[in-house]
Amino acid sequence: MMSMANLSIDSSRLSDELQTLARFSDAEDPAVTRVVYTQPDREARAWLKGLCREAQLEVREDAVGNLFARWPGSDPALSAISTGSHTDAIPMSGKYDGTVGVLGGLEALRALRRSGFRPLRSLELLMFTSEEPTRFGLGCFGSRLLGRAADIVRMDRLRDTEGISLREAARSAGFSGDLETVALPKGYYSAFVELHIEQGPHLDRSGEKIGIVTAIAAPAALRFVYTGDGGHAGAVLMPDRHDALTGAAELALYIEEVGRTNGSPDTVATTGVFKPHPGAVNSIPSRCTMEVDIRDTDLASRDRAVARVVQRATEIAARRGLSVETEVINSDPPAKCDDRIVETIEGAAREAGLSCRRMVSRAYHDSLFMSRVAPSAMIFIPCDKGYSHRPDEYSTPEDIANGVRVLATTMARLAGDANA
Amino acid sequence: MMSMANLSIDSSRLSDELQTLARFSDAEDPAVTRVVYTQPDREARAWLKGLCREAQLEVREDAVGNLFARWPGSDPALSAISTGSHTDAIPMSGKYDGTVGVLGGLEALRALRRSGFRPLRSLELLMFTSEEPTRFGLGCFGSRLLGRAADIVRMDRLRDTEGISLREAARSAGFSGDLETVALPKGYYSAFVELHIEQGPHLDRSGEKIGIVTAIAAPAALRFVYTGDGGHAGAVLMPDRHDALTGAAELALYIEEVGRTNGSPDTVATTGVFKPHPGAVNSIPSRCTMEVDIRDTDLASRDRAVARVVQRATEIAARRGLSVETEVINSDPPAKCDDRIVETIEGAAREAGLSCRRMVSRAYHDSLFMSRVAPSAMIFIPCDKGYSHRPDEYSTPEDIANGVRVLATTMARLAGDANA
Repeated sequence: MMSMANLSIDSSRLSDELQTLARFSDAEDPAVTRVVYTQPDREARAWLKGLCREAQLEVREDAVGNLFARWPGSDPALSAISTGSHTDAIPMSGKYDGTVGVLGGLEALRALRRSGFRPLRSLELLMFTSEEPTRFGLGCFGSRLLGRAADIVRMDRLRDTEGISLREAARSAGFSGDLETVALPKGYYSAFVELHIEQGPHLDRSGEKIGIVTAIAAPAALRFVYTGDGGHAGAVLMPDRHDALTGAAELALYIEEVGRTNGSPDTVATTGVFKPHPGAVNSIPSRCTMEVDIRDTDLASRDRAVARVVQRATEIAARRGLSVETEVINSDPPAKCDDRIVETIEGAAREAGLSCRRMVSRAYHDSLFMSRVAPSAMIFIPCDKGYSHRPDEYSTPEDIANGVRVLATTMARLAGDANA
Repeated sequence: MMSMANLSIDSSRLSDELQTLARFSDAEDPAVTRVVYTQPDREARAWLKGLCREAQLEVREDAVGNLFARWPGSDPALSAISTGSHTDAIPMSGKYDGTVGVLGGLEALRALRRSGFRPLRSLELLMFTSEEPTRFGLGCFGSRLLGRAADIVRMDRLRDTEGISLREAARSAGFSGDLETVALPKGYYSAFVELHIEQGPHLDRSGEKIGIVTAIAAPAALRFVYTGDGGHAGAVLMPDRHDALTGAAELALYIEEVGRTNGSPDTVATTGVFKPHPGAVNSIPSRCTMEVDIRDTDLASRDRAVARVVQRATEIAARRGLSVETEVINSDPPAKCDDRIVETIEGAAREAGLSCRRMVSRAYHDSLFMSRVAPSAMIFIPCDKGYSHRPDEYSTPEDIANGVRVLATTMARLAGDANA
């Protein structure tokens, strides 16, 4: 087994780069808003490509802007080892979600090169387009396409709230071509490893430095649109009303109850989007759109929760004289991580003297879809109080450097040493 | 008593003008969105001033853009008789709310002039700035200032959701000067009469053609901001959550219950604005802003409903580990209409052979504030199914012409005949 003793992570440079990336944002520091194909996203991509070229990586982009930066191995015919994550950020979120896996992945490659390591298999850094569902309502559309898990007909119909299609938005950012061309050939990668902040409190609470993800929870996203009767808030008496907002509010409370009482401690159910129409103080809402996120590490529990919510949505509508449209935006199975990669990560962490634990990921990640086309696993590092998707999201430079060290070691082991 | 036998209302021209005004809009026909000081509002104002000048009226505007168009009486030293309403429109609303009182008021003056009538007292048409609370959260700020019912210090602090102050927004539309200068001197008008669609179903159901408003309900508007803990919707388990949205949803359901169970059939309570932050499907809302409208014809009932809602808002916050800020945006007493004007309207309706009824207005209007500085009353006409604040808001040209005829007759009676 090769030694990683002379592997030196440039934590200071990496911290600076994370701060720089955070300034490509539509929100003011410390908040970050970087939505796919908007100006900050486009500028961040250009900056990132520059960093990759500076690191002597071969850069290419696909039809939706997934970015590939390759360090060719001594035997380029062998399937490559890849790492990566995303740089898009939901409105008013933080600096570490996704970005640690992209810039940390880049630093892992740079550190390996500095150490004198020469890979047998090629190493590749990936930046996935739109892990976050903010703009088109569908999360992970870059990795979903790569992983052949996308319904391309449906994806082609997706529009943002301005009515702009995914294809038009991609074109405005300089990406064109058929969505079909994005899919990775089977066997293109022999392994994929994603470094990510935990986005939960477990490592921060336990003091362990490295989480090794063995499975990713099964996420589902639903959209409900309640329609009732609008009218003047002063003039329509209560018995004459069919208020879309109060119907939706009743469902939001039930969704919370399902999360709490689904019989699985891992079920989480969240109403994150709630938009009454017309949204004026003196107008009875005639319509209310909700977007709901339901997950579990167990697929059967998740599906039971989804079914309960969908049934109640209809019952509420019938009782209140409303109509409701229900749409399943996505409903993905869980992913199991690859045993060999999990063991390699565990060995790398132990060798670096870092405490670690195996755990499941309740948040979903691009790895969920990459696991469809490549053996995959994830490395988690602690984040302060488990906070994520908010401006005070934080991981220490030391914790990030530990994650990069474990990632670099893991990739080197998986790629093989051309000098050996 | 002078006869109005030769009074001829140009219903066709008035219908055309209502359609034209509806095209100054940020929404597509038939919906209307015309928010104070935006481009459509500014263009509508310019067009309306042209119509007033064409009708030989003397036009002036005050520091916030309230528009006055005067037909001087034969004795200009006497206090004037005024009519008017508003032309601003909440998002995605209709073509008749307010506009019927402005363009109908203009047609009333034109019809009187065509009939050969010469007023003893001056007649004045008013177009009030921002009856709707859409932009700054405060309804009727034009008439509120005219009626000396405004808290000017607070009004000076109002900002829209973009952070633009009322004063800056007014300036961008070409209006400047101290808000103090807007107040009308006592005795400036000897009467104010507002023509308006009912915005409720009573006249449409009964088939009566004219409603004579004897009192205007007491409106209150409240803002609640719940704050909890954000986080990733996948990663934070249910027992660890302090979700601001579900707290707000619980309050929205209670607000509806208060409207239904307040012990007064006239209490209405509506949550019209409901904005979770950050508003992403995979993010637990850390904050949720609600705006709530509570009214009653009886002040004590209204205040009881407000007190119940405010108390419950705090209880919900305490139970859920959230904080809540409560703000009373406005809380106005009801207005009683002037008996002499009510009787004059009733006489004019009977003379025109129109069925009529006395009624209260549950919607509030600029008349609520004009009644602070002038004897006031309102003329209601039917609107289809009582629909208002929605694109299918509709009154027939005949019903509108009936309202204009009664308005013109009433104004002529109140002004006195210079030819007599």
